[in-house]
Amino acid sequence: MNSLSAVRSVLNKLGASSSKLSRQISTMVKTKKFIYAKAFQGEPKETDFELIEEELPDLKDGEVLSEALYHSVDPYMRPYMARYPVGVTMIGGQIAKVIESKNVAYPVGSTIFGQFGWQTHTIFNPSEHTDPIQSYVLPSFGKHPSSLGLGVLGMPGNTAYFGFLGICQPKAGEVVAVTGAAGAVGILVGQIAKLKGCKVIGFAGSDEKCAWLKNELGFDHVINYKTENVSKALRTAAPEGVDCYFDNVGGQISSQIIQQMKDYGRIAVCGSISSYNLDVKDMPQVPILQPIFVFKQLKMEGFLVWRYADRWMEGIKQMSQWVDSGKIKYHETTTDGFENLPKALIDMLRGGNTGKAIVRSSL
Amino acid sequence: MNSLSAVRSVLNKLGASSSKLSRQISTMVKTKKFIYAKAFQGEPKETDFELIEEELPDLKDGEVLSEALYHSVDPYMRPYMARYPVGVTMIGGQIAKVIESKNVAYPVGSTIFGQFGWQTHTIFNPSEHTDPIQSYVLPSFGKHPSSLGLGVLGMPGNTAYFGFLGICQPKAGEVVAVTGAAGAVGILVGQIAKLKGCKVIGFAGSDEKCAWLKNELGFDHVINYKTENVSKALRTAAPEGVDCYFDNVGGQISSQIIQQMKDYGRIAVCGSISSYNLDVKDMPQVPILQPIFVFKQLKMEGFLVWRYADRWMEGIKQMSQWVDSGKIKYHETTTDGFENLPKALIDMLRGGNTGKAIVRSSL
Repeated sequence: MNSLSAVRSVLNKLGASSSKLSRQISTMVKTKKFIYAKAFQGEPKETDFELIEEELPDLKDGEVLSEALYHSVDPYMRPYMARYPVGVTMIGGQIAKVIESKNVAYPVGSTIFGQFGWQTHTIFNPSEHTDPIQSYVLPSFGKHPSSLGLGVLGMPGNTAYFGFLGICQPKAGEVVAVTGAAGAVGILVGQIAKLKGCKVIGFAGSDEKCAWLKNELGFDHVINYKTENVSKALRTAAPEGVDCYFDNVGGQISSQIIQQMKDYGRIAVCGSISSYNLDVKDMPQVPILQPIFVFKQLKMEGFLVWRYADRWMEGIKQMSQWVDSGKIKYHETTTDGFENLPKALIDMLRGGNTGKAIVRSSL
Repeated sequence: MNSLSAVRSVLNKLGASSSKLSRQISTMVKTKKFIYAKAFQGEPKETDFELIEEELPDLKDGEVLSEALYHSVDPYMRPYMARYPVGVTMIGGQIAKVIESKNVAYPVGSTIFGQFGWQTHTIFNPSEHTDPIQSYVLPSFGKHPSSLGLGVLGMPGNTAYFGFLGICQPKAGEVVAVTGAAGAVGILVGQIAKLKGCKVIGFAGSDEKCAWLKNELGFDHVINYKTENVSKALRTAAPEGVDCYFDNVGGQISSQIIQQMKDYGRIAVCGSISSYNLDVKDMPQVPILQPIFVFKQLKMEGFLVWRYADRWMEGIKQMSQWVDSGKIKYHETTTDGFENLPKALIDMLRGGNTGKAIVRSSL
């Protein structure tokens, strides 16, 4: 917390009697924010973003002022921005500290998650949120850092928990394949699969990532899709075929894995990161999948984790228990400095991260 | 029933006392059968089959002798034969009459379904069947011909009933697309969808088929995929998008339809007839589907109707009620003569049929 926040915090505790002074100080609050300045074409570029500063108004009744601690960079940001006009604040989740509040549900000092975008300070009114997970006060993470609220104890954690268990319905002894295995979601899917008694095969893009998945996280087999023949390596790792496939990346590799599914195999399509930087007309071409879908009676379902919004805290609670008991390990790739958000996003889309990619907002 | 059958039938009614004479006559029974003589390459050819005659042995206790009335030719036969060695009897279902029986469950004169392959006469022991729908005595079809046991009141009927309702889960007011709409299964899926209050869009390969689907079966929109721009025509027919897609044909057209699905759309993959004559290395290439699966949260499931074997009679009963009440219309494309089975199969794979393709076994 910086010195302004500290003053603000003290003032806030003094309550209504300090409101006049508080308002005077509030007029001095500025937020830094990244504007989506140029529509992405291919890989995002740093020049697609513009960093600006804006003064924030006084808080109204019911409103909260928060200051960002950690920002999330996630694969979904690349395709989602196609829906937004140039000029909006860049989207994204953040962990923030409440530094001023006129809302009893968000007391000053509390640590929150907010879908506030790439900005350092945010004024919001929780009662105006139509989305139940637009913002929420984080439950206690015990000895773990609050940044986990962007990873294993947040959206990626729930993506793995609900998406994998709900769609793949894995059973003990089954074979689970996961692509993007060293990413924020992939490392969790693999570990949950191990918890459920499955044999886990992870696909990642470097020997270092592969070694780490095997040695640190206990994956049974790892395949470097950049250097190995995927079909051949998978046949060796799982001669009996694949029961569940959790797909984070899409592309040719997905078709190669699907061709080795067993009867009644289940595929959860979580992401398609391999094609996010491509124009629609440049999508990779693959042989049609219908024949194998019929004869192996496969099931494939795409999902967005927001569909589980009404069960959000159930997922976080279960993942917390697994993290606390050491059954699930987490890993973060941290970039320092709010100004480095564009670079961190670009790097993550290139596969530069292991585990969850976050940006620490050193103000 | 021919004269030999008639004699056989009378003898059978006389019971054990006629067993000696029955056996003497039994030794005279011959079956005609088509052997899978050359492995299919591309489109099946008449020379891939060999017509032979074989003498049948006497019936043993528990056995039944049947004589074919109608044979089925179905799309699945093309890909399934890849699993069989050259030299086997060609596979397929048939409607037959029991002409001799040493099994009380299959009395002489009863009309049965049997998965007996392309042969005119079959000796079988129902108690040795491991598959519950390998053979069964047909329930009464009332005024309708027994050939329906190969179509609306048999495998294609159950394919439409269980596959469409079970996998697509259509709701009143939803938009349903079906390819191979004029085929044995397609005409039933479209009509069931109409019964459920859906808007139905059918894809077929000729203007005649399209007109018939619209005028006779009440499809809301029909698209001739051979002459129309499928994407454009579908956008006009269903500007709001597609909720359920029942896919009989696979190929490029499937990808075009999937690109116009609504959020949470459901796809039942029943067949992939457009690629059955192609070698694996010649499969059509299509853009990857993962991005739309994620962002529209689509679900796609392939199925083989045999998975519903334990509910088989439930499907036939429901379809019978709909046929009896005129809510479901059926249509057959009939070829005369057992000898014409190869030609009928080839023609059906070319889309020559409307509704169910059958062969009447004029002995």
